Amino acid sequence: MSKEIKVFAPATVANVSCGFDVLGFAVDSPGDEAIVKMVDKQGVIITKITGDGGRLPLDPNKNTVSATIIKMLDHLGEKRGFEIELHKKMPLGSGLGSSAASSVAGIFAVNELLGNPLSKIQLLPFAMEGERLASGTAHADNVAPALYGGFVLIRSYNPLDVISIHTPSDLHAAIVHPHIEVETRDARSILRKDIKLKDAITQWGNVAGLVTGLLTDDYNLIGRSMQDVIVEPLRAILIPGFYEVKEAAMDAGALGGGISGSGPSIFSVSKGKETAEKAGKAMVDAFKKIGIESDLFVSKINAKGPIVI
Amino acid sequence: MSKEIKVFAPATVANVSCGFDVLGFAVDSPGDEAIVKMVDKQGVIITKITGDGGRLPLDPNKNTVSATIIKMLDHLGEKRGFEIELHKKMPLGSGLGSSAASSVAGIFAVNELLGNPLSKIQLLPFAMEGERLASGTAHADNVAPALYGGFVLIRSYNPLDVISIHTPSDLHAAIVHPHIEVETRDARSILRKDIKLKDAITQWGNVAGLVTGLLTDDYNLIGRSMQDVIVEPLRAILIPGFYEVKEAAMDAGALGGGISGSGPSIFSVSKGKETAEKAGKAMVDAFKKIGIESDLFVSKINAKGPIVI
Repeated sequence: MSKEIKVFAPATVANVSCGFDVLGFAVDSPGDEAIVKMVDKQGVIITKITGDGGRLPLDPNKNTVSATIIKMLDHLGEKRGFEIELHKKMPLGSGLGSSAASSVAGIFAVNELLGNPLSKIQLLPFAMEGERLASGTAHADNVAPALYGGFVLIRSYNPLDVISIHTPSDLHAAIVHPHIEVETRDARSILRKDIKLKDAITQWGNVAGLVTGLLTDDYNLIGRSMQDVIVEPLRAILIPGFYEVKEAAMDAGALGGGISGSGPSIFSVSKGKETAEKAGKAMVDAFKKIGIESDLFVSKINAKGPIVI
Repeated sequence: MSKEIKVFAPATVANVSCGFDVLGFAVDSPGDEAIVKMVDKQGVIITKITGDGGRLPLDPNKNTVSATIIKMLDHLGEKRGFEIELHKKMPLGSGLGSSAASSVAGIFAVNELLGNPLSKIQLLPFAMEGERLASGTAHADNVAPALYGGFVLIRSYNPLDVISIHTPSDLHAAIVHPHIEVETRDARSILRKDIKLKDAITQWGNVAGLVTGLLTDDYNLIGRSMQDVIVEPLRAILIPGFYEVKEAAMDAGALGGGISGSGPSIFSVSKGKETAEKAGKAMVDAFKKIGIESDLFVSKINAKGPIVI
């Protein structure tokens, strides 16, 4: 007897300007799709991967879509096995939470097939283990929004405290992925270990403003709070044309924006789809002006996290 | 022809644990009272001050209750004059926003007597000038909550961006003022100009959690977000028994707490008046154990700011 399910898990924007390491949000597009089949034979295998250009490992212990499932099944003492087809529908290494989307697609599908033995908060640590596999650190700012949808605050890691933040219904994101490479390692190493108290105060004022804007549907406050005085000035150096691209989005009516995750993708948020599309096109054009091709993704902030499709 | 008004302006707790320099809240008690009379003769005079032990200046240019009014009248081109009786009903130099309460009482009363020519956001810069007179810096984290009531976020100073944060209706504060002196100058100079990025991230996660807890009536989240890893560990050194007093409040059921302003007063917040009173008594007892007498103020978070009484 076998049972099969097809799921979608969303791409995510971590950091979100002033919210470095504590905020993330999910988008309706792009995202990963996985077809997961429950079989009687124990073990997890990946039968097929598309859309990765051959870059992702088929070894189930090395791919986040399956390694997370293995840990989860081990935890549940589950004897059945699973076969996975993974369809990457987003660029890898782009700052869009590609590994997180695969992790979440995998564990969400398996949890569904098993009749939902685990709640989302119980699934989260397994998805975080996927991040440890992918990047060396079990960070939650991509997997939590991928799993919960919307904006998510990681208040604390120890103990883990993850809080869904209400997202205004007309908030849209435009994400532009330039065809350049930024090593996450470089993006990390460029950060300073010590910062000015003065800058930190500016930053936490903005983080509080951003969260307040989201919770009170105050689009203008969301926009004026999206100012990162600590991380963006350093990481912008790694992305040619960053300020021109961001400025182009703002000129087109975006509320605010910044680097998606550790880059090189750049996001902007806007009120309404039309403005988000304008902002996105302006960002693509700004990259083109300096000779960089890019992909554009415009969608609503994702409200649900992973879904069965 | 003369017209007289009696007003109350609340004491305030600035900083609020993780919200150093960006958050403050007002309480229903204590606070200052002022009786302000509008007279035909131009100029501002202080006719009487009670409750200050003779420490406050009667010179209208040197007292925050009147210096703020002088600037405001100048701005308005107002030809009438004002006589002020100031009744200090809170300890001075205690970290409870004594100068802010006087500033706000003064400008609020005059604005009322003049038929409210200025809105609260227009009054705020004058009150901030009172803070400059009192402490050398035009900070807003006492005057803004004293003027608006409730919790207030100072997102930015340049441009000034002050946001009222919804406060859960059953949130109460217990503030204990120990009979010791802490110089604001010492409280400032003990801070470090550089801090760890790691600690700053913890702090802004907590600030975001605190604001989210307030806006969503999540008392538990308010409590667990009230953790200050940057300022409290340094300033606690200036307050004998700080950790014992805070611990006593927590053991009595308080949600959280910290240093009020730059101290030496310590505040705790609780759900419900009864718990706040228990927490307050436990704090007083903890100070008493180490030989320090203190005053206790328990009240609801103030919702209105200054009022005519």
